[in-house]
Amino acid sequence: MENLYFGNTEIKGGFWKYYGDLDRNVTVKSVYDRFEETGRFDALKCNWREGMPNKPHMFWDSDVAKWIEGAAYLIEMHPEPELEAKIDELVERIAKNQRADGYFNSYFLTVTPSEIYTNRGWHELYCTGHFTEAAIAYHRATGKRTLLDCMLKNIELIYKVFVVEKSASFVTPGHQEIELALLKLYRYLGNPMHLELAKFFIDKRGNNEIEDRTAQRTDDFAARDLQSAAGHCVRAGYYYSAMATLSLLTDDKGLNDACHRLFDDITLRKMAITGSIGAEHNGERFSYPYDLPPSDTYNETCAAIGLAMFAGYMQELEADSRYGDVVERVNYNGFLSGISLAGDEFFYTNPTEVDQKKFGRSTFQPAFDRVKVFNCSCCPPNVVRLLASISRYMYTLDGDVIYCNQFAESETKLTIGGEPATLCQHTHYPYDGKITFTYRGKPTVLYVRIPGWCVEYEGETEKGFARFELTDGATVTVDLPMEIHFVEADPRVQDLSGRFAVTRGPIVYCMEGLDNGENLRDVAFIEGGNAKVVAEEGIPAPVLYMDAQRREQYNTLYRVKNDKRIPFTARLIPYFSFSNRGKTDLLIWAQVK
Amino acid sequence: MENLYFGNTEIKGGFWKYYGDLDRNVTVKSVYDRFEETGRFDALKCNWREGMPNKPHMFWDSDVAKWIEGAAYLIEMHPEPELEAKIDELVERIAKNQRADGYFNSYFLTVTPSEIYTNRGWHELYCTGHFTEAAIAYHRATGKRTLLDCMLKNIELIYKVFVVEKSASFVTPGHQEIELALLKLYRYLGNPMHLELAKFFIDKRGNNEIEDRTAQRTDDFAARDLQSAAGHCVRAGYYYSAMATLSLLTDDKGLNDACHRLFDDITLRKMAITGSIGAEHNGERFSYPYDLPPSDTYNETCAAIGLAMFAGYMQELEADSRYGDVVERVNYNGFLSGISLAGDEFFYTNPTEVDQKKFGRSTFQPAFDRVKVFNCSCCPPNVVRLLASISRYMYTLDGDVIYCNQFAESETKLTIGGEPATLCQHTHYPYDGKITFTYRGKPTVLYVRIPGWCVEYEGETEKGFARFELTDGATVTVDLPMEIHFVEADPRVQDLSGRFAVTRGPIVYCMEGLDNGENLRDVAFIEGGNAKVVAEEGIPAPVLYMDAQRREQYNTLYRVKNDKRIPFTARLIPYFSFSNRGKTDLLIWAQVK
Repeated sequence: MENLYFGNTEIKGGFWKYYGDLDRNVTVKSVYDRFEETGRFDALKCNWREGMPNKPHMFWDSDVAKWIEGAAYLIEMHPEPELEAKIDELVERIAKNQRADGYFNSYFLTVTPSEIYTNRGWHELYCTGHFTEAAIAYHRATGKRTLLDCMLKNIELIYKVFVVEKSASFVTPGHQEIELALLKLYRYLGNPMHLELAKFFIDKRGNNEIEDRTAQRTDDFAARDLQSAAGHCVRAGYYYSAMATLSLLTDDKGLNDACHRLFDDITLRKMAITGSIGAEHNGERFSYPYDLPPSDTYNETCAAIGLAMFAGYMQELEADSRYGDVVERVNYNGFLSGISLAGDEFFYTNPTEVDQKKFGRSTFQPAFDRVKVFNCSCCPPNVVRLLASISRYMYTLDGDVIYCNQFAESETKLTIGGEPATLCQHTHYPYDGKITFTYRGKPTVLYVRIPGWCVEYEGETEKGFARFELTDGATVTVDLPMEIHFVEADPRVQDLSGRFAVTRGPIVYCMEGLDNGENLRDVAFIEGGNAKVVAEEGIPAPVLYMDAQRREQYNTLYRVKNDKRIPFTARLIPYFSFSNRGKTDLLIWAQVK
Repeated sequence: MENLYFGNTEIKGGFWKYYGDLDRNVTVKSVYDRFEETGRFDALKCNWREGMPNKPHMFWDSDVAKWIEGAAYLIEMHPEPELEAKIDELVERIAKNQRADGYFNSYFLTVTPSEIYTNRGWHELYCTGHFTEAAIAYHRATGKRTLLDCMLKNIELIYKVFVVEKSASFVTPGHQEIELALLKLYRYLGNPMHLELAKFFIDKRGNNEIEDRTAQRTDDFAARDLQSAAGHCVRAGYYYSAMATLSLLTDDKGLNDACHRLFDDITLRKMAITGSIGAEHNGERFSYPYDLPPSDTYNETCAAIGLAMFAGYMQELEADSRYGDVVERVNYNGFLSGISLAGDEFFYTNPTEVDQKKFGRSTFQPAFDRVKVFNCSCCPPNVVRLLASISRYMYTLDGDVIYCNQFAESETKLTIGGEPATLCQHTHYPYDGKITFTYRGKPTVLYVRIPGWCVEYEGETEKGFARFELTDGATVTVDLPMEIHFVEADPRVQDLSGRFAVTRGPIVYCMEGLDNGENLRDVAFIEGGNAKVVAEEGIPAPVLYMDAQRREQYNTLYRVKNDKRIPFTARLIPYFSFSNRGKTDLLIWAQVK
């Protein structure tokens, strides 16, 4: 099975069109401006010298690369001459400064050339990986191959240094990413050396005599022996994605089993309801099973993206709706919270609860307002590239059989039975759950994911998909009852016991202090009370108004239980849209009476 | 008004007799042995030299002093020749090594004699304060005045250095305590210089040109300007106690008002239900108002003792039952949790919730099992001295009018109308709430505190006290309905919202994992369900058995709210008795359905 390339699908309206347009009109430019100001693009000139401003950093190239990749996706769908000119200029700098042997990294060439490939903890292979993904995207979008040639040359050098001569001071990268890029490159160009090199890095990880092994870098065990998700969440997500892809390409059962164990461990024990991962700020890592406190959690935006990526690759291994469920959970919630509604401010960490008073405490609290720029700026360009290619996991093809994993007003070009075909979705999702598919092409079968949130769906499903025969001109409608749910977590999630999240369709809801006053943890929704679903200007998903109650304040600190309550109408907004009106408290997990 | 000296009251049975005997038979000896092993007593020989084991520490003298004070209280009530011999030997060491000018501190004399009175952050005056309290206690118990004379001489030196010559490098102590000791000394001997010196330290604190001011040391404002409780809780408790006493002795309205503000701020906003204070481990300090998380809280045993002390002194300023309420809350809960049921192991920090799995996280978690000895060993001897004098705040006298603040099977000698009188309490408190007073002596009035927990009491009260006329031979009975209560916290205590503590009389109850399984936060008690109050061997207060329920574990991490529950009978033990059967989870704040 293979995910259909995002470029085959044009999003034509609705929720993701809103965000695609935002990316194209605001985000890609805003991130460019911030990177220009901070010297990330200048660094590619490799002319920085001590005493000059904006000293390059060892992971800056990866920021640039992700921005190029995202811009390339936008160009692929619609011409953007200005963006293309900017990329061409950046590529020129890279080509000009690439070393004769193929090496390129603006930081190491400029600041510490004697230390190339000497320290595993630095980010050289990570940066090459991101440049490689950018090179593929830009070549595909424009046919221009300068960046691709640069990276092919760099990868030849890496193959020589790491596989043939073994002359580097380490065997596998400290921060995974190149594995995934090499597999993408192999799938794009078909050069077996790229597959071999990816396999080398995966096989040797946690499985060589040279490197220290730590759970933090996911190398305490060899890939096929990994039992549970641990360590730095972004590294883990990229690595598991590469493992899944390698397993697909080489039919590797050991890797396949490991990927299933890891996916289960994350999604049954270590994932916030928003799809965010990384409860432990110390090490930006997975915490122990069921440790999912609503506050003082880390939830890096890139980690959520990594989880969606892992789920997206898993759906190439197996038809099962839970992969699409996770992609959807992440995309509508813990990923999308990473960007402001105006498109130019970002979260690195994504709080799932804010009590502003808590910032007086010494325990870790994630920032609760987005900013235009931050030093470790991996997330903003990661948002740019994911929004620009959001349909990337929408369809999976098993031969001619089509699996629809995600919903959006869209038109998709496919090849079915060797002939061109077109599949359109017409929907107001996530305002309601009705999706109408129209099809032109040779007869085939369409499987449509019935989301896990849709417990009211009564039709038959296979592994969570509803099955439909498609013939030329067919119209198929799936109508997913979209009710408001109170959702609870497994009782082993101690911090959420007695608390419930409000969801409707794929959207996790939250309350903000601005709408609902102080002491949000004291709010209880009324089971069976009134609930209104309202479309409002400025937020591209419904807002909810629900009957709720809270206690009065006392004159004593402790008193005997009292059932007197103050009723009020709570305003709930989609979680992704929180913190767009200034600093305020946030609550997802409330009480229900 | 004046608290009746504890020595006037003999506890003759019941709860506090159990603990008094434990102190006498086990604790005082066990702490002695630990201090002997760790060199705290040897330090008084002042012969430690570099290279020898057990290097003295600058606060060791305070540990020794509190132990002497506690042992003296035990001797005062019943002869203890062995303890007395030990004290005499320690006093001899002090007398022998006291400098001719009156200075004594074993650490500074031995390790850094050139640095005497040069650093405010060190604990010299704090140690002298504790030795002074010990000296008073030992003189009162035995009539022996060597230690008292030593301390009187040391205090003369302090007066000269700090008040007359101002030759020390600082003006007021970094860690308060000497203020309280000086006021006690003044009340014992009547020398106005001691009152003047205490007033000097209180007046100058946060009110001089030399010292940095920090909330942490409660000197960001002058005493009379303090608005809210902040900083290191032990220092604050000792300081506020001294402020209250000075206010009493000098009729100082500014101090009196400040003490009321501080007492309100603590008890309406910053006190755990157990009477523990100090939610913020960083700085062992008060957190912001209503920040009372059940876990990751600090709650030092000495801080609880300091709060009981402050409340105990406040009841000399004003007849109001809330002071006795706080003393009782602390003594039965957050203080008593500091010592094991066997009497020889101690908590420095007192957790109010334990989820053992949380120890995998990077956030602060207080230790959850008591130990025999710890380096900063202020708490164990503080427990010794408080248990030995637990009746210290039991009665307050306003002329001949008697206020009874605390309950215990006991006999008290007083002077009423210039004649000896006897007041006995007969009670099974806290098994039930019936207290019978018998009186012999001249006619007077008895006010009995009606505890704040007794919301079912229907008699008349004045400021929380029930009034009774006492005549010779009178018998007065107060019967306090002792129901099981679900107690809630103010809604501003965000971390306790939707949760309830079980209390009965003065006792706060808890569940342990050993009795009630894992995931204790998921337990809900049944409102109106069965509840049994049972006397059990090994715990000197009732155990409760209550109808409860919990959820099943799921196969998914999140699911739509489901009302299926597993009923069970929860076993609740008094909070003070938790962690006496090995490491296990702990929960006070549960759900109620």
